Amino acid sequence: MTARIIDPAEVARAYRDGIRGEVAALESPLTLVGFLSEDGGPSRTYASYTRKGCEDVGIRFDLRKVTRLQAEAAIEAANEDPDVHGMLVYYPVFGTQQDTYLRDLVEPRKDIEGLHSFWARCLYGNRRTYDDGKKAILPCTPLAILKLLDAAGASTTDADQPYAGKRVVIFNRSEVVGRPLASMLANDGAEVTSFDIDGPLRFVPRGTEVGHAVEETSVTRGEALSAADVVITGVPSRSFALVAAHELRPGVVAVNFSTLKNFADDAKEVASSFVPRVGPMTATMARRNTLRLYLDRD
Amino acid sequence: MTARIIDPAEVARAYRDGIRGEVAALESPLTLVGFLSEDGGPSRTYASYTRKGCEDVGIRFDLRKVTRLQAEAAIEAANEDPDVHGMLVYYPVFGTQQDTYLRDLVEPRKDIEGLHSFWARCLYGNRRTYDDGKKAILPCTPLAILKLLDAAGASTTDADQPYAGKRVVIFNRSEVVGRPLASMLANDGAEVTSFDIDGPLRFVPRGTEVGHAVEETSVTRGEALSAADVVITGVPSRSFALVAAHELRPGVVAVNFSTLKNFADDAKEVASSFVPRVGPMTATMARRNTLRLYLDRD
Repeated sequence: MTARIIDPAEVARAYRDGIRGEVAALESPLTLVGFLSEDGGPSRTYASYTRKGCEDVGIRFDLRKVTRLQAEAAIEAANEDPDVHGMLVYYPVFGTQQDTYLRDLVEPRKDIEGLHSFWARCLYGNRRTYDDGKKAILPCTPLAILKLLDAAGASTTDADQPYAGKRVVIFNRSEVVGRPLASMLANDGAEVTSFDIDGPLRFVPRGTEVGHAVEETSVTRGEALSAADVVITGVPSRSFALVAAHELRPGVVAVNFSTLKNFADDAKEVASSFVPRVGPMTATMARRNTLRLYLDRD
Repeated sequence: MTARIIDPAEVARAYRDGIRGEVAALESPLTLVGFLSEDGGPSRTYASYTRKGCEDVGIRFDLRKVTRLQAEAAIEAANEDPDVHGMLVYYPVFGTQQDTYLRDLVEPRKDIEGLHSFWARCLYGNRRTYDDGKKAILPCTPLAILKLLDAAGASTTDADQPYAGKRVVIFNRSEVVGRPLASMLANDGAEVTSFDIDGPLRFVPRGTEVGHAVEETSVTRGEALSAADVVITGVPSRSFALVAAHELRPGVVAVNFSTLKNFADDAKEVASSFVPRVGPMTATMARRNTLRLYLDRD
């Protein structure tokens, strides 16, 4: 058996078509503002991808170059500006804890990345709506991975708990991807084992009201992997021991969102589906969040 | 000339007497809850100091031991509990970015440390009141340093801008002490030069409405120190070159809040006042914030 390779750009296409159609039907232009504080580096490249992605679906992208010291006032002005519908801050700005301060300075209803603590609290508490029925925004990369898992056939048809009975292993527990992703999957019924440098944790489903609970565990990598229906990796280190075929259940769905390779080549021989990267889907989900926040604005 | 040594425990006494009197006059008990997630280490020691400090002024201190995984739910329950008037979380809980999430999970009106982003936004925007006239809470250590500067005679009698015309140098720009302290002093009229590992910044006064602005600067340590009326250090590194007498203006007020020595011994020979540590005053300001939040609760 060789895994079906899932191309995130391909899966994203249908979403982009949908977004393009909805944006075209809007009566006024939809504007996303990006704040870039560095002249070079990966942020600049990422901003040019954002521009292309926005143009592709008809969203106006307004990239504003700011110094690190201008960023705070620029974000506050954009918070108040009714013509700014979404915001994207390219980090690092200071490269210190001050960036965390900036991140939470963005008005949640303009935070298209879904990283504001307002959205994090919704997610961890399994509160799926806010303001009397508006759907809560989810962080882009975890949301992208959920959509790719759907495309890979990893979910069930249970509308309330699409991951009921599924076992998931995630290598990464960052605040940006790994922890929210584990929580979202457990809210959807999965039993998730989360590995990070400070050890494993279990995210266990607790029904649609509570969502999930988190528990300490002493499960080993080998035990968790051999039972997993889904394995998701996001380890940005070359010293990580690649996940190999002999560790995996035949038919597993495998996803890597690290920029480094986290699966050994032979993993594809046992997996039913393999998602080698997530990036294009993340960018599409950012556009989707932009549209959603626009439609749900007061 | 030899500097007058300011003992923070001595300065704190008058504040403690005031707090004790106000607490004694309350009709119902005032309860501060501490959350401790480690069995040993500095947090446990700090918690025992908190207990002593609370007992000294008549505040009930309820120390709750929680596992790291219980902390989130415990904070949320205390947020809702009308019998909990203030909260203190002993970090590290996770020792990762997740601790930042926990910090902002504390209801601001129970955050006696004044570290919630709600209070930070008040401070950086020079909004000194909230909810129609209640005085905003300030973070304990910067507030303690301001009170010690008063005791050292560093401020003027200008009620609106007590540091108008004063030049201050601060070595430390952390989100917990150095940055809020620089902002508070500039809001009060001081021209502050802030040094950190990523270079100097200037915090300049902009009047009582705006408060202050922050500017890039290429000023050197030598230039800044030779002009400073007040020098405040908080560098937790033994490789920091100690601030020495020949760098200082005679009559300078010197404050060290690092647990390490940041001034050379000869600095005392040129300073008018020297504050060798801040800790006892910080603890007293935490109690003061607890009382203030209790009195201002709805």
